[in-house]
Parts: sequence; C-alpha cells; structure tokens
Amino acid sequence: MTNVDMNETLNTESKLHQSRFLKACRREPTDRTPIWLMRQAGRYMAEYRAIRAKHSMLEVIQNPQLAAEVTLQPINAFDLDAAIIFSDILPPLMGMGLELDFVKGVGPQLGRCIESPADVEKLTIPKAEDCMGPTLEAIRLVRQELEPRGVPLIGFAGAPFTLACYSIQGGGSKMYEKAKRFMFTYPEAWSQLMHKLVDVVADYLIQQAKSGASALQVFDSWAGVLSAADYVRFIQPYNTRLFQLVQSASVPLINFSTGTSTHLDEVTKCGGDVIGVDWRMPIGKAWEMVGHNHAIQGNLDPTALLGPWEELQLQVDRILDDVGDRPGHIFNLGHGILPPTPIETVKRLAEYVHERTG
Amino acid sequence: MTNVDMNETLNTESKLHQSRFLKACRREPTDRTPIWLMRQAGRYMAEYRAIRAKHSMLEVIQNPQLAAEVTLQPINAFDLDAAIIFSDILPPLMGMGLELDFVKGVGPQLGRCIESPADVEKLTIPKAEDCMGPTLEAIRLVRQELEPRGVPLIGFAGAPFTLACYSIQGGGSKMYEKAKRFMFTYPEAWSQLMHKLVDVVADYLIQQAKSGASALQVFDSWAGVLSAADYVRFIQPYNTRLFQLVQSASVPLINFSTGTSTHLDEVTKCGGDVIGVDWRMPIGKAWEMVGHNHAIQGNLDPTALLGPWEELQLQVDRILDDVGDRPGHIFNLGHGILPPTPIETVKRLAEYVHERTG
Repeated sequence: MTNVDMNETLNTESKLHQSRFLKACRREPTDRTPIWLMRQAGRYMAEYRAIRAKHSMLEVIQNPQLAAEVTLQPINAFDLDAAIIFSDILPPLMGMGLELDFVKGVGPQLGRCIESPADVEKLTIPKAEDCMGPTLEAIRLVRQELEPRGVPLIGFAGAPFTLACYSIQGGGSKMYEKAKRFMFTYPEAWSQLMHKLVDVVADYLIQQAKSGASALQVFDSWAGVLSAADYVRFIQPYNTRLFQLVQSASVPLINFSTGTSTHLDEVTKCGGDVIGVDWRMPIGKAWEMVGHNHAIQGNLDPTALLGPWEELQLQVDRILDDVGDRPGHIFNLGHGILPPTPIETVKRLAEYVHERTG
Repeated sequence: MTNVDMNETLNTESKLHQSRFLKACRREPTDRTPIWLMRQAGRYMAEYRAIRAKHSMLEVIQNPQLAAEVTLQPINAFDLDAAIIFSDILPPLMGMGLELDFVKGVGPQLGRCIESPADVEKLTIPKAEDCMGPTLEAIRLVRQELEPRGVPLIGFAGAPFTLACYSIQGGGSKMYEKAKRFMFTYPEAWSQLMHKLVDVVADYLIQQAKSGASALQVFDSWAGVLSAADYVRFIQPYNTRLFQLVQSASVPLINFSTGTSTHLDEVTKCGGDVIGVDWRMPIGKAWEMVGHNHAIQGNLDPTALLGPWEELQLQVDRILDDVGDRPGHIFNLGHGILPPTPIETVKRLAEYVHERTG
C-alpha cells in the first residue's frame, strides 16, 4: 500500500466513523436524524423481485455477488444512512445440522427440527467462516463499495431465543407453543440449546464485523411471546452472554426485539449500545424505560407506509416530536418493511426525516 | 308460577348473584379465587371433538341444543366457576352481509369482505334476535341448566376493532395490514364501519344478558396491532360508546384485549368492570395501571399448560402471590386455551387455584 492509498483508506474510514448512523449509535449529535429500514432490501422493490424471479431466497443469500447487489439496491434508490447485509436469521441453523427451506407464500420451514433433548445434543457448533462464508464475502464486497461513499454496513443475526423458536417449532407461528412447551419441559436441554446458539451467533457476528460490518444488530423478533418474568428466566442470561462476547468486535451493537415494551428495562440489561423498539409504545416513553445512556432505534408502524402521505407524516412527526433534539435516535420502523409498501413512500419518508431534522 | 316456584327462582338467582365469579366481578371478597378459561369449551376436550367430528363449527353454533351441550362440557368436567356460551366472535358479521366460513386448519375466512368505503355503506345493522337467534336460545337453555347449580354464564362478542380487522383482512393475520391500510386511508369509512359494529355488538350483548347471561365479555383480541397513540384514535372512541350502551344490560362487563399492556390505562378508560389482560405483564403491575377500582382477569400464559406440572404451579403461584388477598381477581389465561392442552392439567389447575386461595 502506498502512502496515498493509506491516506485514502484512513480518510474513508474516518468518513464512515463520522457517518450520521454511527454517530447516532454513539449518541453524538448529528446534522440530521439517520434513517434506515429493517428489510429495506426486499420484495417491495422491483429490482429485488427481478433477481428473486430468477433465484431462490437461499441462492441469493449464498451467492456473494447477488447478496451484495441486493444489499445495495435500497442504498442506490433512497436517501438511507445505512445498509444492512442481505441475508436471513436462519441460515446459521443449517450449519448446526438443521434443514432449512424457504417455501413460497409460507416462509421459512425447517425440514428437520428439534423434537427432543437428544436432538439438541446432536447440534454442532460450526465456525461462521465454514457455514456463513458467502455472507461474510458479501459483506467484504459491500464494504468496498460503500466505504468510499461513507455509508456504514450493518451485519446481523437472530437472537438465540428467536432461533430456538424456529428450530423447535419448524416455522413461523403466532404462539410458538411447541417451542415454549420444549422450554418449559426440558429446561436443561433448553439451556444447552441456547448456549450452543450463543456460541454460533457470537462467532458469526464477530466475523461479520471483521469482514467489514460497522455495526451489528441482534434480532429477537419473537421475544414478545414470553411474559416479562419468563423473559428474565429464559432469554436474559443468554442474550447477556451474547452481548458480552460480541463486545470484542468493537462496533456498536443494536439490541432489537418486538412485543417487549412492558419490560424494555430487562431487555436493556442484556446489553447493546442501541435498543431497537417496536411501534407499540411512544418512543419517548420507551427511551425513558431504556435509559438515556443508550441510543434508541425506531419506531414507525410498518403499516403506516401503506396509507396516504398525510397519515404517515403525522406518525413520523409524532416520533420526531417525542424524541426532540436529544442525540442518539436512529429512525427506523418498528419491524420489517411490508412487501406491498410503495417505493415512492419509502423515498419520501427518508427525505422527510432528513428535511425535518436538518 | 306458584309461591314455591317463585321462592325457588329467587333462591337460585340469589345463589348466582352470590357466586364467586360474580362477587369477584364486583370486587367483593370470595371464599376462593374464581377461575374460568377462555375457549374452555374447545378442541382439547374429547367430548367436544366427538361433536365436531359430526358437525361443522357453524352447525354447532347455529344449533342451540348442540351449543348448549358444548358450553356445559367443561363445567361438567372441571371445577370451573363460570361457563361461557359456545359461539365465535364472527357470526354477527354474517348478519351484516358478509360471508363467513371456518376452514379446517386455516381458521375463519370471510368469503366476501370489505374492500372499499362503498362496501361499508352496504353493511346492514341486523337485530341480534334475527341474526344470532340460535345463540340467544342456547343461552336460555344453559341458564336453565346452570342457574340451579349456581354457575353464572358469560355472554360475549368481538370488539368493533377486532371485527373490523377480520371484515377487511378476510381472515386471521399477524399484522392486519390490509385492515390497517383501510383504517389509515379511509378514516371516514373506518368511523362508519366502527359505528355500525358498535350498534350490532351492543344490541347483541344486551340481548345475551336478557336471554340469561350473567356477565358479558368483549374480546378485542387484535387491539395489540395498534400503537398506543393509534389505540386512542381508532379504538377508544368506539369501545367507550360500546361500553356505555351495554351498561343498560346491568350485568358486569369484562373488557379483554391482548398486546395492550403498555397502555392498559387507555384500555381501562373505554369501560368495563373487569379488565382482562394477557400474560406479558406481571398481573400486579397490570392491576396498578388499570387501577384498583376495577376487577382484573388473567393472566396465565396458555402455553404453560403444555409443560410439566411443576412449571405450571410456579407460574400460577407467581400470579396468585402477585395478586395477594385483594378481592376482585378472576383467574384465567391470558388468551384462549390451546388445542394440545392435556385435560388432566386443566382439572388440576382449577383445583389448585381453589386450594391455594381457600
């Protein structure tokens, strides 16, 4: 590397470090409120549907070039402040010995799932480079592209509980009753399963940071099926260990969950620099429960993007007014963007959040 | 009626009035904590499955003798303190001009649903005696059977929001995005729809009380898909009007919803003598938000009935300890009982709640 190259690298790294998104993660003041959207690379975009018409979900995830291309689509189309690597929370389970397929119109289905403590015993703990190599490679490709543009890339993984839910239930569910029955019936096997998942997820997240992710988000999407007391018993010890381990990655960590508004204090205790919240609770009240020593991410109702602009604007204003001028707010949805969302709305939303906070 | 008959009627009515369940609704001290379970007449019971093997869901609902029989099954099998009439929240929608079917393995599906404001215009407001006659007749049959045994019967209906969700979405959903899009896009048609539903539901509930129901529960099962602020805008005015209208029935009213723990204060403002809560928040904290001038119903996690007795006992103890000896607690689940629940567990649960609070 020549001195010129070296300086350029330092410059682009510093540009990244000074990006709105990463500053907000560190609760530093920003010129405008940063915005990105969960599942921003997805079916609401024609460019994405064009690729998915030719390739299955798993093919896109396992092909670094395609995954990188899909990751960049929303960054090229909208005024967003961070990219998130295109993948899914479930593929690491395949590396552990489970079978995964994405069934059209149904969602993810595990062909072989966990039914007994013996099945937990059999689970292996693969290295991320062996089982998630294509995603790590996609991260390297996207980083090369985005670092010069000063746009940070977020890596992510499912939280142990949410992965355990899928591993036992075999697919999506409203109550995850099979998973919870297992949890209540086999507390030791549950603990073993959660420990294994912590190890796999921690390594995977750390490797994503090493490959170029500037921040990491943990998705505990189904944590809300547990009561507050059971969250403390069955999730908190494992998430706490996970966030401790991943601190070694030295990048901001985002702790996201849904349906946990009643016990955001317990969620926060697990760790994370940024707490991601769903749309149920006013963000000001949520931030009070979380504590202002953390940044906060959220929390627009994803269905508000399906209605008219006036209604959406009202809901965005509600959030921005509630936050005020405190630093450390990352604007986002309260859960993933919905497939019928019009792209014009996404474009206008990103612009509006920047305009209103400029 | 002879004097002897008259006295007997007065005696059985007074016995009913002095039942644990109705006393708890009025926050009077009881000898033991009353317990009943949402969907206690249902697929987890062999007696129920035997009837459903020969009759569809709608056939059972529309046949007063069968509906009465199914209503009594859990009362005869377990030590429960109240019956709830066997029906579903959706049949009143058929009277309004929508088409309903219960599809095996899928759940309720509306063949014709609401897609535009014009569809709302077309909805009629039927009288309960015309569209829900069989359920009212079933209530009369069950009352005859249960009054001498001192067991009160609960009538129920879906809340306007939950019915509107189904009417527009056409079936069950995680986010009810079609329904919410309609709500955001056509606020006037939404208001008209909710007003029509209030009228239909209020009349139906009042007629259930006149037919013999000793208490009435309003199920707002999907209220939790709205943010706290949108609950106040899109649900509260209508539920408030509903509870005002139904006060004329002069029986205790139970206001049940799920996913609303963050704004139980706003839920309570709508009305109801008893607030029914899901399992997410500790019941003591929930009761504080509700206020001790209301009774409270709940809030065991239904999945806890799928695990071992020791775990279930721990969760029941947690609830009873949290409540302490304050009068006005009705033990229940936080949502409907699940089909794989073992009947031995239900039996033991009812006995245990009575034993521990005796």
